Amino acid sequence: MGVGEGNEEYGRREFQRSRSHFTDRVTADGRDGWPVEAGRYRLVVSRACPWASRGVISRRLLGLENALSLAIADPVQDDRSWRFTLDPDGRDPVLGIRFLKEAYDARATDYPDGVSVPALVDVPSGKLVSNDYQRLTLDLATEWTALHREGAPDLYPVALRDEIDTVMAEVYEDVNNGVYRAGFATGQKPYEEACAGVFRRFQALSERLARRRYLVGDTITEADIRLFTTLVRFDAVYHGHFKCNLWKLAEDRVLWAYARDLFQTPGFGDTVDFDHIKRHYHQVHTGINPTGIVPLGPDTSGWLTPHHREELGGRPFGDGTPPGPVPGPEAVPPTGRA
Amino acid sequence: MGVGEGNEEYGRREFQRSRSHFTDRVTADGRDGWPVEAGRYRLVVSRACPWASRGVISRRLLGLENALSLAIADPVQDDRSWRFTLDPDGRDPVLGIRFLKEAYDARATDYPDGVSVPALVDVPSGKLVSNDYQRLTLDLATEWTALHREGAPDLYPVALRDEIDTVMAEVYEDVNNGVYRAGFATGQKPYEEACAGVFRRFQALSERLARRRYLVGDTITEADIRLFTTLVRFDAVYHGHFKCNLWKLAEDRVLWAYARDLFQTPGFGDTVDFDHIKRHYHQVHTGINPTGIVPLGPDTSGWLTPHHREELGGRPFGDGTPPGPVPGPEAVPPTGRA
Repeated sequence: MGVGEGNEEYGRREFQRSRSHFTDRVTADGRDGWPVEAGRYRLVVSRACPWASRGVISRRLLGLENALSLAIADPVQDDRSWRFTLDPDGRDPVLGIRFLKEAYDARATDYPDGVSVPALVDVPSGKLVSNDYQRLTLDLATEWTALHREGAPDLYPVALRDEIDTVMAEVYEDVNNGVYRAGFATGQKPYEEACAGVFRRFQALSERLARRRYLVGDTITEADIRLFTTLVRFDAVYHGHFKCNLWKLAEDRVLWAYARDLFQTPGFGDTVDFDHIKRHYHQVHTGINPTGIVPLGPDTSGWLTPHHREELGGRPFGDGTPPGPVPGPEAVPPTGRA
Repeated sequence: MGVGEGNEEYGRREFQRSRSHFTDRVTADGRDGWPVEAGRYRLVVSRACPWASRGVISRRLLGLENALSLAIADPVQDDRSWRFTLDPDGRDPVLGIRFLKEAYDARATDYPDGVSVPALVDVPSGKLVSNDYQRLTLDLATEWTALHREGAPDLYPVALRDEIDTVMAEVYEDVNNGVYRAGFATGQKPYEEACAGVFRRFQALSERLARRRYLVGDTITEADIRLFTTLVRFDAVYHGHFKCNLWKLAEDRVLWAYARDLFQTPGFGDTVDFDHIKRHYHQVHTGINPTGIVPLGPDTSGWLTPHHREELGGRPFGDGTPPGPVPGPEAVPPTGRA
C-alpha cells in the first residue's frame, strides 16, 4: 500500500484504508484480457509494506520467481510516491521507469486512490494491471498453477476456503488493518479501540495457535502469510511507532514461537528486510514521527532462536516441498537481516 | 524538571539539560538563611518527573512527611508551566498559588532557565528556596536528620560516598539524562549515540546487580533511588516515546528483578503514578508526539510479580526499618497504580 499513508491528510480524519482501484485479474483463462504467461508481468513491491510482502512470500513459496519478475521500490517514497532509486540510474531495469506512477499513468488518467504497492505491471505495454492487494496472492495460488514449481504447496485449498476466509477477515480487520487504525488515529478514543482490538485478536489467535501449528488445517496457507506480514513488523514498528504497546510480540510465548517458526521457514524470513521496514515507517510518517529518526531497536536476533513448534506436528508444505534458496539478486542485504 | 522540555525549542538543537538556577540549601545550621525547620517548607513536585520523584521517595523513606509537606502539580503543564489544577479551585491549599511560577516570581524577577520541579518553597514568604534537583535529596538525607523518623535509613553513608557519587555520575550521564538526550535528539547520530549509551550502561548495571542486591553496599542508598526513577518510567515512556527500544526493561532478567524489588519496597512503588507519567510525556512533548495520544500499554501488572532478590541477601534499610503506610491524602489514585 502506501496510498497517502505518509501524508498529513491522515491528521484530519480517522484512518480509512483505500480500496484497490485497479482490480483486473490475471487468470489462467485470461478473461479480463490478462492471461497468465511466464515473463509477461512484473510484480512491483516495497519490502517495507505488509500488503506487498504477501506477494513476495507467495511468489517464493510457489516458485514463481522465474515466471514473474520482481521490482523492489525504495522504502522511502517522495512526493511522487514509490520510486526505483535502489536501481542503477534510479530506473527499474525491466520497465525502464523511475516512478511506479509512470505505470499507473500509462494505464489511466485518473486514479483517486493514488499509487500503491503491490502493483502488477504488464511488461510489454508498461501498463498497470492490478493493485488489488486482497486478490493478488489468491490468484498467484489458484490461477498461476501452470507455472508453479514442482512441489509447490496449496496455499488456498478448496476444502478449507471458508475457514481460511473467516480467519483472514478477522485478522484483516483487527490486526493487519487494526495496527494502522491505531497508528493513524487522531483521537484518543479511536486509537484505544483499535489498539485494544489488536490485542483482543492476538489473545484469541494465541489460544488458537497454542495447540496447532498453523492457523487452518495442518499446513501453511494464505491465512498464515497474511498474519505473518503483520507479526514480523510488530515489535519493529507497530509496537512503538503505532503505539500498539500492551506487550511486544516477543512477550507472548505462543505467537512469538509461531512467528519465528514461519520466519525460519524458507520463503518467509528470507524475504524480510528490517532496514526497509524501519526506515519506511519512521521516515515517511512525519505526522507521527516529526524528526524522522529511526530507532536503533529492537534487537532482531531473537527471530533466529529455536521455536520448538515442530513438536506440534503439522506439515508445512503438505505433500509438497520447501522452496529452494533465494535467487542471488533478490537476497536481502545484510543490513536488513535479523 | 520540565524546563522547556515540552516546547518546540527542543527541535532546534541537541538537548542540553538546564542547570538548576536556585541553589540555596536548607541546612541544619541555616548558613544560607534557610534552616531546617518542621512545617516551614513545601516540596513541590510532579509525580511524572523523575527528578522530582527522587525527593518524593527520599521524603517517604526518611519519614519526613509531617515535617515537609508535599504539593503535587498537574502532570500536564500549560504555557505557564506547572500548575495546581489537581487541587480544589486550582490552587495549592498551603501556598495559595495557582502556578508554581508565582513562587519563582516571588523570589526573583529573572530566571533564564524557567520553572522546574522539584521546587522547595518557603511557606511563610511564599518564595522559592531551591530547584536544585541534584542537591535536594542529598540534603534531605544529611541535613534534615533531626526530623527523620525513628528507623530512617542512612541513604548517603559517609564511608560509601565516593562510590555512590561515582555510580550516580555514570547513571546520570548515560541513563537519567541519556534517555532525554535520545528522546529529544533532532538528528539520527546524536540519537543513536545516546540510545546506545543507555543500553551500554544498562548492560554494565545488569552485570553489577547480578550478584548484589543494591548498587552500593548492601542497603538502599541514594544511588538506587536515582536509578529507580528512570527504570520505573522506562517501559512506560522511554522505550517507545523516547525510542530507547533495544529491549524493554522487562526483557532484562536482572534489571527487571532489581526494579521490581525496589518498586515493592515501601517508599518506592507507593509513590509512582503511571497515569501521571504517561500523560505528561505523551501530551506535553508535542514535538515528538504531535497527536498527544497516550498509549494504552504497557501492561504494568508485572511490577507486582515476585522478584526473588531477597535470595541475594542485603538489608534494605540497614539497621533501620521500612517506612509506614502512605498518608491517606498522598496515596496514588487507583488510575495510576500498577
